[in-house]
Order: sequence, then C-alpha cells, then structure tokens
Amino acid sequence: MPSPEDVRRVACVGAGVIGGGWVAHFLARGYDVTAWDPAPDAEARLRRLVDAAWPALEQLGLAPGASADRLMVTATLEEAVSEAQFVQESAPEKLDLKRELLAKLDSATPAGVVIASSTSGYPMTDMQTEAVTPGRLVVGHPFNPPYLIPLVEVVGGERTDPEAVRWASRFYEVAGKSVITMDREVPGFIANRLQEALWREALHMVASGEATVRDIDLSITEGPGLRWAIMGPMLTFALAGGEGGMAHMLDHFGPSLKSPWTRLEAPELDTALYDAVVAGCDDAADGRTIADLVAERDRGVIAVLRATGRLPGTGAE
Amino acid sequence: MPSPEDVRRVACVGAGVIGGGWVAHFLARGYDVTAWDPAPDAEARLRRLVDAAWPALEQLGLAPGASADRLMVTATLEEAVSEAQFVQESAPEKLDLKRELLAKLDSATPAGVVIASSTSGYPMTDMQTEAVTPGRLVVGHPFNPPYLIPLVEVVGGERTDPEAVRWASRFYEVAGKSVITMDREVPGFIANRLQEALWREALHMVASGEATVRDIDLSITEGPGLRWAIMGPMLTFALAGGEGGMAHMLDHFGPSLKSPWTRLEAPELDTALYDAVVAGCDDAADGRTIADLVAERDRGVIAVLRATGRLPGTGAE
Repeated sequence: MPSPEDVRRVACVGAGVIGGGWVAHFLARGYDVTAWDPAPDAEARLRRLVDAAWPALEQLGLAPGASADRLMVTATLEEAVSEAQFVQESAPEKLDLKRELLAKLDSATPAGVVIASSTSGYPMTDMQTEAVTPGRLVVGHPFNPPYLIPLVEVVGGERTDPEAVRWASRFYEVAGKSVITMDREVPGFIANRLQEALWREALHMVASGEATVRDIDLSITEGPGLRWAIMGPMLTFALAGGEGGMAHMLDHFGPSLKSPWTRLEAPELDTALYDAVVAGCDDAADGRTIADLVAERDRGVIAVLRATGRLPGTGAE
Repeated sequence: MPSPEDVRRVACVGAGVIGGGWVAHFLARGYDVTAWDPAPDAEARLRRLVDAAWPALEQLGLAPGASADRLMVTATLEEAVSEAQFVQESAPEKLDLKRELLAKLDSATPAGVVIASSTSGYPMTDMQTEAVTPGRLVVGHPFNPPYLIPLVEVVGGERTDPEAVRWASRFYEVAGKSVITMDREVPGFIANRLQEALWREALHMVASGEATVRDIDLSITEGPGLRWAIMGPMLTFALAGGEGGMAHMLDHFGPSLKSPWTRLEAPELDTALYDAVVAGCDDAADGRTIADLVAERDRGVIAVLRATGRLPGTGAE
C-alpha cells in the first residue's frame, strides 16, 4: 500500500454524474486517472462532463501538471484498476449490483490498494459480503459535484480493516477534500440523513399542495441556505439564542420544539440531549464567543451575497 | 393606509435577537424606527445589537439618509406604535402572549396600518383571536439575522383581509426583502418546516450518539450547505440526475427513497407526486437547461468558496 501522499494513479469505476465528477476532481488535483463504465456512450459522456467542469476547475486552481489528457478510459474494468493505487467506485445505487461489483474490483485490484464506494446510503457491511479481501473496502461518500463540494464521509464496514479507513481519510485530505471519519455505520451517513429529512419534508409539502417546487427552493436559497454555507445548523441555531447561545435557544424554543411543524417527530429534549447539544456547541465554537460567531456569520453571509450578486435593494428613500 | 412605497416610520415591538435584527434592517433601509420592549435593559441591548450590525450594513450599502440615530426607543408600547405606518411584532414564541400582545397592538396602532408578527410557526388564525380588527394582522416571518437574510414568508389568518397580505408583501419588497406569499396557513410555513426537519434529525443523531455537533455542522458547511446558498434542494437534486434531470433522478433514486435513512417517513412516490416534482423543476428552471443550471451552480459555488476563503488544497503534486 503506497502512502496516501505518494498516490499518482487513481481508478474511477462508474462514470455517471458522481463518478464523472470524481474523475474531474482527481484530474484537476494532478492524478493520472483510469476510468471504466459499461455504458456504450460512456467515454463521450465522461469527456463532455470533464470538459464542462474544466473551466470551473481552472478557476479554483489546478494542481501542477494537471490535465484532462491524463484521463484514460479503458475497455474493461480489469484494465482500469490493474495499476491503480486507489479505486473509487460510483456505480448505480443498487445493493446487489454494488455487492457484485465490489467483489469484482477486489479480485482485479492489486493487493493492499484501498477501494472506496461512493454509495449514498448503503452500509459497507451490507456491500462487502461477496469480496475475498473485504478489509480494504470503505465508503467514501462525496457530494455532487465531487469536484466542487469538499465533503467526503468515510466509514468502514464490520469486516473493514480500521487501517483502511484511516488511509482513505488521509488520502482524501491529500487530494483536497474535507473529511468526516465516522466511527460507526449509520445508514445515509450524516449529511445525507440531514438533507434527506429536508428533501422528504419538501416532497410531502409538494404532495399536499402546501408549497410549490419554486417556493421550496426560494425558501432555502433566500433563507437558511445563505447561512448554511458559512455555519452549520447547530451553531446557526445557537446564534438564535442571542448572547445566551444554544442554552438560551433551547430554553426559549423548547416549548415549540414539539409543535407539529415538520412531519418528523422531535426527540425528547431531556437533560442528556440538552447538555450534549449545549456542550457540543461550546466545543464547536472552540473559544469563539457568541459575538465572534455572529461577526463571522455576518462577514460570511455578506461575502456570499456579494459574490452571488444578491445585495438587498435600497428601501425607503 | 399609506402605499407601501410611502412608508417612512416603522415600529418594532419586541427587541430581542429577531426584533433587534428587524430594527437594524429598517434603520439601514432608511426608515425612522420606534421600538419598545418590556425588558429593563432592552434599550442598551438593542443599541448594542444595532451597533454590532452596523458595519455589516454599511458594507451592504445603506439607503440614503439611513442612520442608527433614527431609532427611538419608547417607554411604552403605545408610544412606539402611535405614529407607525407599519408594525413588526417580535415577542417571545408563546401563543397566549402573542394573542394578548397583538390585541394590544391592534388597539394602539392607527386604523388601517398593517401589523405583522415574526412568529416562527403559529398560524395567524390562532393568534388573531383577541383583536378587535384582525383583518390587518399578518405573519411576516423573517430569518435570523433579519438584516442579512432576505427571506420573509407572508401569510394571513382566516380573519385577515387579503388586501393586508398583499400590502405587507409589497411593503417588504420595497424594504429590500425577498418575499414568499403563501395562499394558505401551514404551521411552520415553508422554510421552517424544512429546516426543522433537518434540525430534528440532527437532534436525534446527537441523542443516539451517531454524530457530534461538530460533525453535523461540518457535514452541512462543507457539503450540501455550499449548494443551498445558490440553488434550492429541488433543483440541486435535479442536477443529480445528470442530463436527465429530476425525472432521471427520481427513476434512479426512487428505490432508495424508502431506505430508512432519516427518521422522517417518505411520502409515497406515486405518479401525481412524481409529475408534480418534475413539472415543478421544469417550471423553476424557467427555460434553463440542465447544462445551464450546472454552470450556474458551479459559478455560484466557486464564488462562495472563494469569498469565504475555502479553495481546496493542491493535491497530488
């Protein structure tokens, strides 16, 4: 197994929106990339995707030597992985297919090389069942598009070697990603559970005629979405508590926590949860006062409003 | 009732985080603002909040004549509203208190002047019960901080005059906000139902030890949060369908829609919902192709990454 810093050649198996986005990311970060996808028009679609992404990647700054020419699309899965130092699998989200494919990749990939799945929700324990050496199989779950959104969630299955999880987390960091390493399998991981909750509530609202698709999108992009690029939902809500922070927020909004707003039932806000949330916010604030956080959020939101051409109108006079 | 364009004097009743944020917003947009809050230290806290927000407001661009000196904090509720041309109520989120306060505001405010409540979830129908002239009472629900986040959700109650809803929506637009006018009462309105779903799932994850507060915030700010400042959850997911858009996305992820990820139960993805979501995305796309939307999202995310100093590392070499 090479050290994460020494990886030069990455294989991407599955070249749809997510797999193709990974290809673009790894190319931009200066890797040699081999790719394989069973679709007959896969190579044309993939090169179109990379070409479309490239101007964005140039703006973000390419790694030295990075080039779309360092992509090789292979005719077989075996050719794609035979010299790979890391494999990213991004096949369609079907459990049986993932099981079989990961077993095939495991047989064709040089010993010791870590193989990561882009699955958006399956636990690796359920996917690694057919592999001969399941210890090197991890989940490395990206967000669309992988060449722009930094987050990758890394977690192993029951039969994954913890060293493979550590290796993958480090490799992704070297490759320019923001990594959350999870110490247990949670279906949907973290961000997808959160965005799925929002997405399901949105679908319910459309189904019941409570809001249009347009209203839903506008309610996020002009509202909470502007804060979430800067500060997550927990610290954001802590700031709703004013100088009292999260503790005051929970005291203040505790009674309405149980209001039947979303269709998701609220947990019991018992002392343990109250304390965990307040202590977690203190930890995440990392010495920053509420005033510091407010100033930071404001600077960030202003930067986002300015960068996206959305400064407010001029008002009364 | 003055025309929304002619309003010069606004009253803000309740001057905590939200009420104080409204004060800062209206001052920055050039209005004369009268404010009242029953807390003994309210004036000092309010002026501190306005002072803290002012540099941000200057950066965003003040309306001509805008000044923090145009704030008058009054000793009584009656003085605050006696000459107001619009009233924004931002009292604590307790139903009985809101009912009584709105009735008091209704008696003290000049006839015909619209009174809006910042409530984050109560339907106006439940709050306007004690008022003598409930027709002018509307919900104008902002997001924290109201001086930076453009969204206001406007909706009336059963006894609200539809003309008051139209007036309030237009007034907020003139005052520099982005407005969603709802044609029916939905507890929690739109954005709060959505962010509450996410928040509740997050609380469940903390309660069960599945993720820390820090993980949760990071999973949003480095992940979906970066997209949501640019494009809402519906169009964002449409782009996960590649060139096939939302229809392909629903075909592809339909099977995993029912996976037990979030604790929120998914709706039945029947033909009606499928069609509504696909048609809604087409409508929201407003003639932009998937490629246009991808390019727009990419430009936006890059602008946000750059504006917030978060360009990715350099990778392989």
